Amino acid sequence: MTGPVVTGTRDVAGDPGVVGLERLSLNQATVKHLPLGEVVALCARHDIPAIGLWRDRVAETGVAEAAAAVRRAGLRVSSLCRGGFLTHADPDARRAALADNRAALAQAAGVGTQTLVLVCGGLPPGQRDIGLARRMVHDALGELVPEAQRLGVRLGIEALHPMFCADRCVISSLGEALDLALHFPADAVGVVVDTYHVWWDARLVAEITRAGSRIVSYQVGDWILPLPQDTLLGRGHLGDGAIDFGPISAAVAAAGYRGDVEVEIFNAGIWAAPADQTAATVRERFAAVLGGR
Amino acid sequence: MTGPVVTGTRDVAGDPGVVGLERLSLNQATVKHLPLGEVVALCARHDIPAIGLWRDRVAETGVAEAAAAVRRAGLRVSSLCRGGFLTHADPDARRAALADNRAALAQAAGVGTQTLVLVCGGLPPGQRDIGLARRMVHDALGELVPEAQRLGVRLGIEALHPMFCADRCVISSLGEALDLALHFPADAVGVVVDTYHVWWDARLVAEITRAGSRIVSYQVGDWILPLPQDTLLGRGHLGDGAIDFGPISAAVAAAGYRGDVEVEIFNAGIWAAPADQTAATVRERFAAVLGGR
Repeated sequence: MTGPVVTGTRDVAGDPGVVGLERLSLNQATVKHLPLGEVVALCARHDIPAIGLWRDRVAETGVAEAAAAVRRAGLRVSSLCRGGFLTHADPDARRAALADNRAALAQAAGVGTQTLVLVCGGLPPGQRDIGLARRMVHDALGELVPEAQRLGVRLGIEALHPMFCADRCVISSLGEALDLALHFPADAVGVVVDTYHVWWDARLVAEITRAGSRIVSYQVGDWILPLPQDTLLGRGHLGDGAIDFGPISAAVAAAGYRGDVEVEIFNAGIWAAPADQTAATVRERFAAVLGGR
Repeated sequence: MTGPVVTGTRDVAGDPGVVGLERLSLNQATVKHLPLGEVVALCARHDIPAIGLWRDRVAETGVAEAAAAVRRAGLRVSSLCRGGFLTHADPDARRAALADNRAALAQAAGVGTQTLVLVCGGLPPGQRDIGLARRMVHDALGELVPEAQRLGVRLGIEALHPMFCADRCVISSLGEALDLALHFPADAVGVVVDTYHVWWDARLVAEITRAGSRIVSYQVGDWILPLPQDTLLGRGHLGDGAIDFGPISAAVAAAGYRGDVEVEIFNAGIWAAPADQTAATVRERFAAVLGGR
């Protein structure tokens, strides 16, 4: 299960911004409270052909059984979430983070995906030197590259929304993620485009174009207001918020990305809803908003 | 009171990132619940030489009396907040916004400041075309430029934090604000650097450098966590949060900005505190964090 996995499919329509349902992936965080086996079954019931896995749920099942379950269901694994949290002043913490990321790379290969999504980490506690934190990310990536290459898994740097810069991810724009990725071989480090995090950026289309084949994942979720008390959970179903998905999808397609498109929504209300209702809405909205139907 | 007002002073020390107390300005939103006369008296009591005014408080007093009050107290007026909200699909709403901004320019001139701070506006209700919203800002600025030039007041485009992109300001980074400003004459349109909104940006120092003499205001406030339910109110006293002010101040100074530095903090807890305590803290923190004392 450590070799390349073909996740690419063709667009269903001539419009480059149109994404067909055959590329829909359900990131399992969208139905956070389900164990892996139930998410796999959910995808099968709703004709969702791919899944984005999370390490905590994979760990509950075990890598081998998780891989077998998705294989039995005929699902592609579009990515594993997540590695990262690479910003540590303490050497022991740094070593532990690197070990954890090596383990994550192995798990990604084990479940049959070529993409490990990274949330790079915020400012180390009590520190304000954002340049230093960014260098910590850079240096840690350099240490992880050989293992990524050996396993055939790419580290996907995800720019998180700038409101998470202090505490979760000092990489705050796609351009910055790409500048970082370009320091490393293309078979080892790429970037993740997540609409929720980058939609506001006036440079977005230009940076997607520049990213080209460095794009290793395209994740979609909408920006809804008001932000909740826990700002991690402010995402909405496609179409419920402010994001104009067409131009972003068109740019991602023009950049050459043909892989799965993950719906990833962190939202307490959606988590509380019946999973079948959520999966049905995910599919409907994907068809309506991304598929132009 | 419509002529140029000298707001420039010299740095107190050789370090270009050091800002002396003689450049401290208290933005009156930091003590939001005080009427203008009381904020003027507060500044005088705490040896704060400049003030950033808000239109609602100026309107209560009247422009002439507001101007007389700050003049009697020997204060400089570093800016007037705020114009903007220029994104309207409805022609009547657009005309009203332009009229309101012309009035704001006149008020700025009337109270003796050369800087009108703009919050440009979010997506029009129900719309998702962010490019169109940005063009609305652009076109409205073009209509306001002649009046700005006539009055000797510069329109200061403030990039707001991307978390406000949908509802308050589609201009989300300093570079974007600057690209917009550069379409217009330098005596009419500039940019505002507000640390709270732009500190996360990997391109910040480069964009400040590029902005040069287009910088018409430097505002400071700290980024504290967790964000409150009302994300407008998440700012902290200098030193209480994640922002490294030295490199930003050094870049602003290197760009040639020598004007007043406004402390602007929206925070319900600070608003509830006694104003004299707030003013004392503002001054102490300014000296300690920006002044290197």
